Amino acid sequence: MTYSILPENQVNRLRNRAKYDYETVHGIVAATPVLHVSFCSGDEDAAPTILPMIGALGTFPETLLEESSEVPDLYLHGSTSARLLKERGKEVKVCVAATKVDGYVLALTPFHHSYNFRSAILHGSAEVVKDEQERLFAMELITDKVVPGQWRVTRTPPTKVELQSTQILRVRINTASAKVRWGTPNADRRDLKDSDLIQRCWSGVVPMWETYGEPVSGPDNQAPIPQHVVGFVSQANAANESVAYTAAQPQ
Amino acid sequence: MTYSILPENQVNRLRNRAKYDYETVHGIVAATPVLHVSFCSGDEDAAPTILPMIGALGTFPETLLEESSEVPDLYLHGSTSARLLKERGKEVKVCVAATKVDGYVLALTPFHHSYNFRSAILHGSAEVVKDEQERLFAMELITDKVVPGQWRVTRTPPTKVELQSTQILRVRINTASAKVRWGTPNADRRDLKDSDLIQRCWSGVVPMWETYGEPVSGPDNQAPIPQHVVGFVSQANAANESVAYTAAQPQ
Repeated sequence: MTYSILPENQVNRLRNRAKYDYETVHGIVAATPVLHVSFCSGDEDAAPTILPMIGALGTFPETLLEESSEVPDLYLHGSTSARLLKERGKEVKVCVAATKVDGYVLALTPFHHSYNFRSAILHGSAEVVKDEQERLFAMELITDKVVPGQWRVTRTPPTKVELQSTQILRVRINTASAKVRWGTPNADRRDLKDSDLIQRCWSGVVPMWETYGEPVSGPDNQAPIPQHVVGFVSQANAANESVAYTAAQPQ
Repeated sequence: MTYSILPENQVNRLRNRAKYDYETVHGIVAATPVLHVSFCSGDEDAAPTILPMIGALGTFPETLLEESSEVPDLYLHGSTSARLLKERGKEVKVCVAATKVDGYVLALTPFHHSYNFRSAILHGSAEVVKDEQERLFAMELITDKVVPGQWRVTRTPPTKVELQSTQILRVRINTASAKVRWGTPNADRRDLKDSDLIQRCWSGVVPMWETYGEPVSGPDNQAPIPQHVVGFVSQANAANESVAYTAAQPQ
């Protein structure tokens, strides 16, 4: 399944790096701890706004997830006073970016320097979720995106005050695209024949990934560090490191 | 030195997390490998656009840097065909976000879950740099931001074709702000008195940082891995890890 290519999401530069399939786009969103959500005020002279937000893809009611042709929605966690919601009416057009850096590509010339990266851009319309069941579904989805299994060990359901101070946005995805650059440095044939340069200037990839450290108990904590957190740290570290080293290989 | 507080950059939520001083704002930009740059098409019904870009703060000519009251410019690396430049005229209003996640804050309730993070938002106007000396200044600035010392070991100056395919944008910063959340989980007094909950549910911080791996030589490489790259990897890893563990302590 792929997103349709429309003027908003068509990748114009380096088209061989473009991907439109659900698996790539949704995988990048799932792997990115902070999404950047941008919207315009509608005033041509005004600067746009970007908010860093936590979000997760999902479909409510959950049974719909079984239809693989379905585009999921993006649920974003906000607060009742967040600017995005305050300034605008019912529906806000948004652009959402999810970006992962997988390594620094160091080449013989500044021009061929690059990053190994995965980047997804979603275009859609954001709306405040009102339905209480859908809101709870989204809160659990977003909490468990951060560390899977967190929701069920915490004190739930949220109190009335907690619910009132939590805003959930649903972004209906209109279209989306991804760009992926993996591999080794590019070089000009002429530079490769410059024996002085090639013996002096190292070219290769410095892999890069997000690492999680040893969990640090808070001052109020009285519980042991749970298995689902320990497991998350070791699994995420191994998976992230493996992706970065894979990206550094010739593709 | 601090940025003036204007309607665009005033932090409205959780004001105790807001920072407007140059040191905090510029430090976050310097530490962030990918900046998210957003702009509007000017059409109220159009979706905004976000581009992930590499950028660095600097002042040209460099002598100006000595005046500490000076706001630096933000230089962004693009390509001559990048959408931001293609679609608009001389000057484009942009919003630029730099976001670092320093840890996951796991609390007794979903509501008190959070991230330790540092986030900077810049508002300004982007323009294509035409002056060749300023362009070269910015290319060196951006290349050396990624791994300090890279520019001088590579084949420079860029060829005519390389220069023609590289676009440099200068963002004159109008105003900026930062938000920082560091520390341990918050909790409600009532939950802390729930002995079943407090013995079952761990609360604390999972520190998180960007790690660099062993440099992987490319297929064309004939040079040893240089000291400035080895040094960068070990220094960046130690510094990033230290920040994440510091953020996990009570502040």
